[in-house]
Amino acid sequence: MKARVEKVFGHLDPKPEALLLSNSVEPHLDGSFFYVFDVPSGLFEGSAAVAFPDGNLHVLSSPLEATTAHLVAKTDRHLTVHVPNSREEHEATLHKLLDSVGSVGLNYQELTHQQFEKFAQMFPSTKWVDASNAIKRARVTKDADELERLQKAADIGSAVAREIPGMLHEGMTELELATEMNYRMMKHGASGPSFSTIVGFGPNGAEPHYFAGSRKLKSGDSMVCDFGAYYRRYVSDITRSFHFGKRDDEMKKVHELVEEAQQAALAVLRPGVAGKDVHNAAARVIDASPYKGRFMHGVGHSIGLNVHDGWGMNHTVEEPIELGMAITIEPGIYLPGRGGVRIEDDVVVTEKGYRFLTTAPRGYLEVPA
Amino acid sequence: MKARVEKVFGHLDPKPEALLLSNSVEPHLDGSFFYVFDVPSGLFEGSAAVAFPDGNLHVLSSPLEATTAHLVAKTDRHLTVHVPNSREEHEATLHKLLDSVGSVGLNYQELTHQQFEKFAQMFPSTKWVDASNAIKRARVTKDADELERLQKAADIGSAVAREIPGMLHEGMTELELATEMNYRMMKHGASGPSFSTIVGFGPNGAEPHYFAGSRKLKSGDSMVCDFGAYYRRYVSDITRSFHFGKRDDEMKKVHELVEEAQQAALAVLRPGVAGKDVHNAAARVIDASPYKGRFMHGVGHSIGLNVHDGWGMNHTVEEPIELGMAITIEPGIYLPGRGGVRIEDDVVVTEKGYRFLTTAPRGYLEVPA
Repeated sequence: MKARVEKVFGHLDPKPEALLLSNSVEPHLDGSFFYVFDVPSGLFEGSAAVAFPDGNLHVLSSPLEATTAHLVAKTDRHLTVHVPNSREEHEATLHKLLDSVGSVGLNYQELTHQQFEKFAQMFPSTKWVDASNAIKRARVTKDADELERLQKAADIGSAVAREIPGMLHEGMTELELATEMNYRMMKHGASGPSFSTIVGFGPNGAEPHYFAGSRKLKSGDSMVCDFGAYYRRYVSDITRSFHFGKRDDEMKKVHELVEEAQQAALAVLRPGVAGKDVHNAAARVIDASPYKGRFMHGVGHSIGLNVHDGWGMNHTVEEPIELGMAITIEPGIYLPGRGGVRIEDDVVVTEKGYRFLTTAPRGYLEVPA
Repeated sequence: MKARVEKVFGHLDPKPEALLLSNSVEPHLDGSFFYVFDVPSGLFEGSAAVAFPDGNLHVLSSPLEATTAHLVAKTDRHLTVHVPNSREEHEATLHKLLDSVGSVGLNYQELTHQQFEKFAQMFPSTKWVDASNAIKRARVTKDADELERLQKAADIGSAVAREIPGMLHEGMTELELATEMNYRMMKHGASGPSFSTIVGFGPNGAEPHYFAGSRKLKSGDSMVCDFGAYYRRYVSDITRSFHFGKRDDEMKKVHELVEEAQQAALAVLRPGVAGKDVHNAAARVIDASPYKGRFMHGVGHSIGLNVHDGWGMNHTVEEPIELGMAITIEPGIYLPGRGGVRIEDDVVVTEKGYRFLTTAPRGYLEVPA
């Protein structure tokens, strides 16, 4: 992917003479490896990519994915695939590519410290450059192919979000609902869930990063469902909140406030606006209500090859929104011991504002028990 | 988990005065954080754990999981939970805990280099110790609670493996089969798949780390299904190979060879044997056949909180097998353009040898088309 390699180097100043991206063992893989090497399947543990400012890319593939790696190389004349058969051959290939190179950029944000120590030992006179900010800036705005995959991943999320009310029945556990949601995502074409599906019934909805457990759904429960799909390595991340059975006037009010907060954030979202201003627009709505202080996370984050893809928005972020960013907007209100409401959508930033990637209804919905 | 903290320190020589385990953003979380802090749900991005040789543990929780973290602390008098509300508070808490400490162990294998740089800056006079080998040695042998979860995860894998033949029908895609397999795992109690399910039909079975794609099943295809479950954060990892429809005498022979290779590895497996000897026992069977060179990965790896949990066996590994290790034994033969066979089981090492965690039938099976 010459264009992506060039995009990363375009953000590097001063530019190192090469870029080295290196996977350790799952889960410690570098998303950027898959950013420059767009390969349809495979884990590529222990694999590495070496990129040069002219856009040329060398991939040191594990033998476990050699066939697929070679197939990709056939379609890209700027890509050379090596398949070292041992750790020694892997190191010899890296030496061949990098021995005459004075400065090398690394992705400090996704590289293990162990790998860094190893490289420092292998190349004692190399000048290492932290390329993580440049990589983040390149990855945070999406190209057409990435947007197509994000849209498909979002479509899968939206489809399942629409189906959730029809899946609910009294006495089902959170894990049972998560099971059905994950199944539907794959039925709709996902390669898997992009993270551990969160289903929180009743008080469990008050913990933003809960998973899905054994609590049974009962009339009067509010619920938070936060989930997403992988589609060709790209993710979606969507949250919908519902109310089951017996009306709860307070939770209805909370839902409406969260909707209003999301609208407020979206209303200011456009290129050039500081990240914190988007966050604060949502936070102001909540902090002006009786629920001041009950929104205790950032309003959103970039999505892409990872769910939390490097960039986020909270009250401290000065960096501006850029054209082509794909991000979530997800305010929430959490009432410990009682329940929570979060509404999360994926959007792409356009010249005049934004476009929704996820489209399922966001409004308060009471599902009959 | 005092016992686990003490187990890690027991493997450290010389012992640092404290251990600092730090999560970055998903997927860059440190499994060891969850080893010492046994918490039922939550991602704990940006969270950290500080452990001392006396077994006391401090967890700096993200506010997103504070309720759950506090619940765990109530059951463990050696655990203190802090919930810093900002990056500044997080750093102030770390300073309070570590400013008077001279040497600190870090898990270089799962820590990002970015986090290391940050700690080096925060604590300029601290002596850093690479604790990754000690952590690996502590984690590689399992305690009773870990074995219980691994057994349950393995039971889920075995149950689904038994159900695969009944799911097959001509024309289904690899992704359709993976969808059903993941669904069944969760129906049996998994919180999710422990990795991206591999289903390779026909020639796709020849790539060990393939995912699951759009190829349709047809009579005469062999297939490789490699999958696993998460159960209370612990994994299983099982591979079964089947033949669909029209007999293929060569693939039947290949299957029988792989079975024989697995038996050979299991026959030498016991405490004290070098890792490479287990690998070589399997490799010898394959290398004495016409398929010499077609088994190009290590014979197995440890499992636990991660699928590839830190330790593995290939022809170079001198480290001995230890009592209580949970590992996979998974020889395979891969014939590019044709297909592959891999048989993978999870076992725990006992005094006299091993005990199977996974139990589904391993033999050659022709499923009628």
